[in-house]
Amino acid sequence: MHISELGEFPLIARLTQYLPPYLADVVRGVGDDVAVVRLDDARYLLLTCDIQVAGVHFLPQVITPYQLGRKIAAINLSDIGAMGGRPTHALVSLALPPDTEAEYLDAMYQGLAEEMNRYQADVVGGNMARADQMIIDLFLIGEVSPDHLLLRNGARPGDQVIVTGHLGASRAGLALVLDPDLRARLPEAQVEAVLRAHLTPTPRVAEGQFAGAFGGVTAAIDLSDGLAADVGHICDESEVGVRLFAQDLPVEESTRAVAQAAGADPLHWALFGGEDYELCLAVAPERAESLVEALAEATGTPARVIGEFVPVQAGRTLVWPEGRESPLTPRGWDHFRIQD
Amino acid sequence: MHISELGEFPLIARLTQYLPPYLADVVRGVGDDVAVVRLDDARYLLLTCDIQVAGVHFLPQVITPYQLGRKIAAINLSDIGAMGGRPTHALVSLALPPDTEAEYLDAMYQGLAEEMNRYQADVVGGNMARADQMIIDLFLIGEVSPDHLLLRNGARPGDQVIVTGHLGASRAGLALVLDPDLRARLPEAQVEAVLRAHLTPTPRVAEGQFAGAFGGVTAAIDLSDGLAADVGHICDESEVGVRLFAQDLPVEESTRAVAQAAGADPLHWALFGGEDYELCLAVAPERAESLVEALAEATGTPARVIGEFVPVQAGRTLVWPEGRESPLTPRGWDHFRIQD
Repeated sequence: MHISELGEFPLIARLTQYLPPYLADVVRGVGDDVAVVRLDDARYLLLTCDIQVAGVHFLPQVITPYQLGRKIAAINLSDIGAMGGRPTHALVSLALPPDTEAEYLDAMYQGLAEEMNRYQADVVGGNMARADQMIIDLFLIGEVSPDHLLLRNGARPGDQVIVTGHLGASRAGLALVLDPDLRARLPEAQVEAVLRAHLTPTPRVAEGQFAGAFGGVTAAIDLSDGLAADVGHICDESEVGVRLFAQDLPVEESTRAVAQAAGADPLHWALFGGEDYELCLAVAPERAESLVEALAEATGTPARVIGEFVPVQAGRTLVWPEGRESPLTPRGWDHFRIQD
Repeated sequence: MHISELGEFPLIARLTQYLPPYLADVVRGVGDDVAVVRLDDARYLLLTCDIQVAGVHFLPQVITPYQLGRKIAAINLSDIGAMGGRPTHALVSLALPPDTEAEYLDAMYQGLAEEMNRYQADVVGGNMARADQMIIDLFLIGEVSPDHLLLRNGARPGDQVIVTGHLGASRAGLALVLDPDLRARLPEAQVEAVLRAHLTPTPRVAEGQFAGAFGGVTAAIDLSDGLAADVGHICDESEVGVRLFAQDLPVEESTRAVAQAAGADPLHWALFGGEDYELCLAVAPERAESLVEALAEATGTPARVIGEFVPVQAGRTLVWPEGRESPLTPRGWDHFRIQD
């Protein structure tokens, strides 16, 4: 059977069956974005990797190599941050066509090193190989205190849903890079804001570490697939449902402006757009408001309550201002009738 | 400038300049096969990765997916073993064409998991992406006591050169997979031996750990590029020269038989063939013979003295039985006149 018929998650499940039982030091293995391994009583080691393929994950004609380097670093840093962890060391694997320009790699490496350095993570090695297509595979490790580790499986009914920053901006940026005409019709400041969100997202590393140490955070994930899909991962692993309040989703003016010009619904982008690299947290109700305040004070990053986790039987819903509820599905493009 | 004009090592050096100075915990960074990071007084963390590209590093028509999985694991395990380390955890990145057969990956994962398990290393995560070409990138970490860490830069003039196992067998296996007619002309037992060496090499993990703990080993490397090139890496980093004794290079009868049938020089294969995944050690002269004996007793793996390190001014030479010396270059195919 071709893997295209099988799909990614069934394939991972299928391959995982060949792995023998884990040794005692493996806290989290295959299945999460980040593996967790016990180093000693005070430290867990975090391991993650992300593979970026030219023409699949990035289009060399719309992202500069410097931006690409930063983004690849950010994607991995975001995963470590979402576990409450501190990134420490990275290896970079490059598969490169022989006619790759060295200057392209100069700029990419510069971006990558800068972004890593911003979070005190060192690139300590890597590997290069010849290939038909450019592929960049980054391995990043980090550390976290066992007390501060954030996983996806601890959310309980009643816990609040908190997100950092703003949603949908990366999707707005994508709309602009795919449609230069649209870009030409919008004010430069708004263009800049959403392009920045799409091309050089900010990983919420300090925010994740703060949340892990704060107490009361029962689950966390970074928003790479889109809020609806990613909050769904917490629901899956915590066996809870969720209610998100449509009017509370944080969407910036620039994102709204791009959506309007594109004839799109900004709420749709906020829920399903993906690549926001914000954090989504499950927080005990008595700690939620204080976390929002303390996080803003400590990191300068806004956060807000956008919903609550509910018993699994209550399902996953989006609540409209007038109180009506719609079912929330991970892939809203086809199945979720946002306007009904 | 295209990277094909620049070459791999100049490109690595060029990109490394964009990295800021390392933090204090980095013992070895970019430039080695394995990075070394301090965990605490008793432990260093080892990090390595190796990218294997279909059509470049392996030919799907001559290696079964099960063999490929084992070999990919072995290549990385060998790197950790050569540092004196114990492999612990791996991530697997797969770039896959959509028409990849799931059954191919089943077999590959089985081989990979089996080989990892043989050395008590757990596959704890990974990543998948769509691509035009199959690429497997394995990330392996391990641990070593600081006292047992083997690097490339400690060899001193007078230290003995020791290799484990046998040389050239992988190259003999390659000759057979590339030429089915040659294979048909040879006895099956000899065919099996060299094919095994080429398709499912044995990483010298226990041997590396034993050597690291034994004392007196001043440098080590695993033989992936071929003895001449790899001993050259020790020479480069230790700033020494080397003399290898042609008659002492361990070459098995099966390798000799294949070489003879192929009209090739088995000594050439032993020096330049590559992919033997044996260990090459620099050992203090007073410890050399006892290490050879103790290693064989502890691990069952033969090892022997094949030369000595000399002052850097004395250069790198191959010593013939009658005492004549030829210069030893890493790429002997063109420049090294083995028969003169």
